[in-house]
Amino acid sequence: MTDLVAIGKAARTAGRQLSPLTADAKNEALLAIAAELEAQAELVLAQNGIDIENGRAAGLSEALLDRLLLTEKRMAALASDTRKVAALTDPVGSEFDARVLPNGLRLSRRRIPFGVVGVIYEARPNVTIDVATLCLKTGNASILRGGKETLRSNLALVNVIQAALEKVGLPQSAVQYIDNPDRALVAEFLRLDAYVDVLIPRGGHGLHKLCRTQSTIPVITGGIGICHAFVDESADLTAALDIVENGKVQRPSVCNALDTVLVHPRVAEQFLPPMAQRMAQNNVELRPAGRALEILSRNGQGAKVVPAGPDDFDTEWMGLILGVKICELDEAIRHIQDHSMEHSDAILTNNWHNATRFVNEVHSSAVFVNASTRFNDGAQFGLGAEVAISTQKLHARGPMGLAELTTYKWVCIGDGHVRP
Amino acid sequence: MTDLVAIGKAARTAGRQLSPLTADAKNEALLAIAAELEAQAELVLAQNGIDIENGRAAGLSEALLDRLLLTEKRMAALASDTRKVAALTDPVGSEFDARVLPNGLRLSRRRIPFGVVGVIYEARPNVTIDVATLCLKTGNASILRGGKETLRSNLALVNVIQAALEKVGLPQSAVQYIDNPDRALVAEFLRLDAYVDVLIPRGGHGLHKLCRTQSTIPVITGGIGICHAFVDESADLTAALDIVENGKVQRPSVCNALDTVLVHPRVAEQFLPPMAQRMAQNNVELRPAGRALEILSRNGQGAKVVPAGPDDFDTEWMGLILGVKICELDEAIRHIQDHSMEHSDAILTNNWHNATRFVNEVHSSAVFVNASTRFNDGAQFGLGAEVAISTQKLHARGPMGLAELTTYKWVCIGDGHVRP
Repeated sequence: MTDLVAIGKAARTAGRQLSPLTADAKNEALLAIAAELEAQAELVLAQNGIDIENGRAAGLSEALLDRLLLTEKRMAALASDTRKVAALTDPVGSEFDARVLPNGLRLSRRRIPFGVVGVIYEARPNVTIDVATLCLKTGNASILRGGKETLRSNLALVNVIQAALEKVGLPQSAVQYIDNPDRALVAEFLRLDAYVDVLIPRGGHGLHKLCRTQSTIPVITGGIGICHAFVDESADLTAALDIVENGKVQRPSVCNALDTVLVHPRVAEQFLPPMAQRMAQNNVELRPAGRALEILSRNGQGAKVVPAGPDDFDTEWMGLILGVKICELDEAIRHIQDHSMEHSDAILTNNWHNATRFVNEVHSSAVFVNASTRFNDGAQFGLGAEVAISTQKLHARGPMGLAELTTYKWVCIGDGHVRP
Repeated sequence: MTDLVAIGKAARTAGRQLSPLTADAKNEALLAIAAELEAQAELVLAQNGIDIENGRAAGLSEALLDRLLLTEKRMAALASDTRKVAALTDPVGSEFDARVLPNGLRLSRRRIPFGVVGVIYEARPNVTIDVATLCLKTGNASILRGGKETLRSNLALVNVIQAALEKVGLPQSAVQYIDNPDRALVAEFLRLDAYVDVLIPRGGHGLHKLCRTQSTIPVITGGIGICHAFVDESADLTAALDIVENGKVQRPSVCNALDTVLVHPRVAEQFLPPMAQRMAQNNVELRPAGRALEILSRNGQGAKVVPAGPDDFDTEWMGLILGVKICELDEAIRHIQDHSMEHSDAILTNNWHNATRFVNEVHSSAVFVNASTRFNDGAQFGLGAEVAISTQKLHARGPMGLAELTTYKWVCIGDGHVRP
């Protein structure tokens, strides 16, 4: 039987032990994890092999199996990523907004760990290492719950982490894994607010919705993007072709990939056929509506053209499909406000006023001018790490780096001050 | 019938209209509200009179009735407070963390409104004006739901706001009130996440718990404090007496009032009797445990002394009662970690090492050295306004001012940039 309350209590205690650690002490643990990942690589690969075998027997697609797969190279990358986390600057303890109040009280805000972070994730076993190391770096204990497809791999990886923690004298309960595949435990986990400070789901829309609706722990949701690029009348159309291609094709299965292109009517005739040609070269199917459908039916340059269905502009494609619509700026902003998940949206323009309006009025977690939506990413934004991409309004939006895995407290220093 | 979805949709639309407004435009609306509060004061007072009459008939205590009461002076204060909100700096639109990435992308974070803020509150009608004006100032639409005891007062105040909004050409739906006292509507309100971005409860523990457990909207909880002062061996005992008295007596019904005093064993004999004397002068009942009980039973200086019950150290007194316990620093920190609600905790000491340890290890929303816990307050911290005091980890902790009523988006400016 899995005792979640015991896990929660152990995590709370471990969090208190991690919280005052120096960056050096936490980095020592991270380097020990990296070394242990290398030392125990064969063991982990063997367990992953069983997961893959079981997955294949259960009929998982080859694409999904590839996501689950660990290889010697991927294991080496996990160790190397862990060393990179050790090399990042620790945000914990840094102070900001320091000031002296008129009555002489010294006031500042100081970054502190959340305490205990819960993470529920699907598929890729590398998330186990990612999340555990980023939490450790920021002095947070973590409780992990991965997908059943990689249970053996995840357990092997958590064993690696715990062995390393023990070697450096830190509590193994700093990183715990819920190893019981019973789904009822998820519901119980979601109500563990007495011991878990923040819950981060990493997975599809269903998982995020489950967490938002069922969790009594504060949740950071995100990861779902219906991303737009508006090609304005004044856009550099050659650059626009590259940006649309990059947004759609470079990695179509991720949340910052492009889903819909909106094109100004004055450049539609000129832009859509070469765009269709690029898409055809990349096996992208087009889903145009209205006049875009008319133009692309007539001059689709060999691209597969399917009329946009009623839900198409509300669909995150996660693959080689692209919605197309013709509209001016006003309607583009409204369309994005109505259909975007506030993830990543771009305007391609040379018009100062239009770029300004777009940036002012589109409130997605990242808004781009003349750049690909694919840049909405912790590494691309120079954060050095990314635990999730948030699209909610509380706490963090966009890529969450180390600082976003912390909260703050006010520190107020007096000299016998009482409130008048 | 109250159509919450219609209210939510109207708020979403209003929020989009408020979002791009300049500070001047929002301040014009605030000044119009202030003027309207003065012009319609009699009308509001008449409605408040009926609320008070009904409250008295329903047997509400005089203390509670005083909280519900509006007077000419209180109405004037509401108008004056609204003008003060107009005078504050608008955080919306300001950028931070601006940088140029190595590839030439220009990146910054820009403050934007949440969109729609939901507020559920109890008792005092001034919260209606407080919250509506702070939301308006930060470009947020608001949906308010107050207590049934002040329904008429709240409706009159919302009418004042909406009349002012109309005068300056802003949508009345920028500030809406759920006027149906049916409690089932609260449950429905809590699930309006499609239209409400953030929910802020203002009231007692029950309300916060209801919101945390039932809401699908991200909630900011707080407002509950079990606050401690640890009197260390090296404390200036004269200053400590003043700080304990200030924390306990100045306004005992609020969340940053002192609930428990922890005293170092080496100064207990010296400190407790004069403390008891001060408490006796202020009609404060003492609830000591262990050796503190022994000392105070022997030398209580006329204070009422009742042995601490099993739940006493987990009780927010909200009145003239004070828990007392004797312990050294280690145990004080553990006691606070176990019993505090992470609101406001203080150490009174002259020992550098102990002050540092306390500040490092106590993670309450505000941690004080040689100062009263009563300072944990937006106005006292110089924020100019306060919408709530948060004790949760996500987003904001401690007093929430205007900046904490905003979120941010990333703005990323390129020149045809695509991701390699």
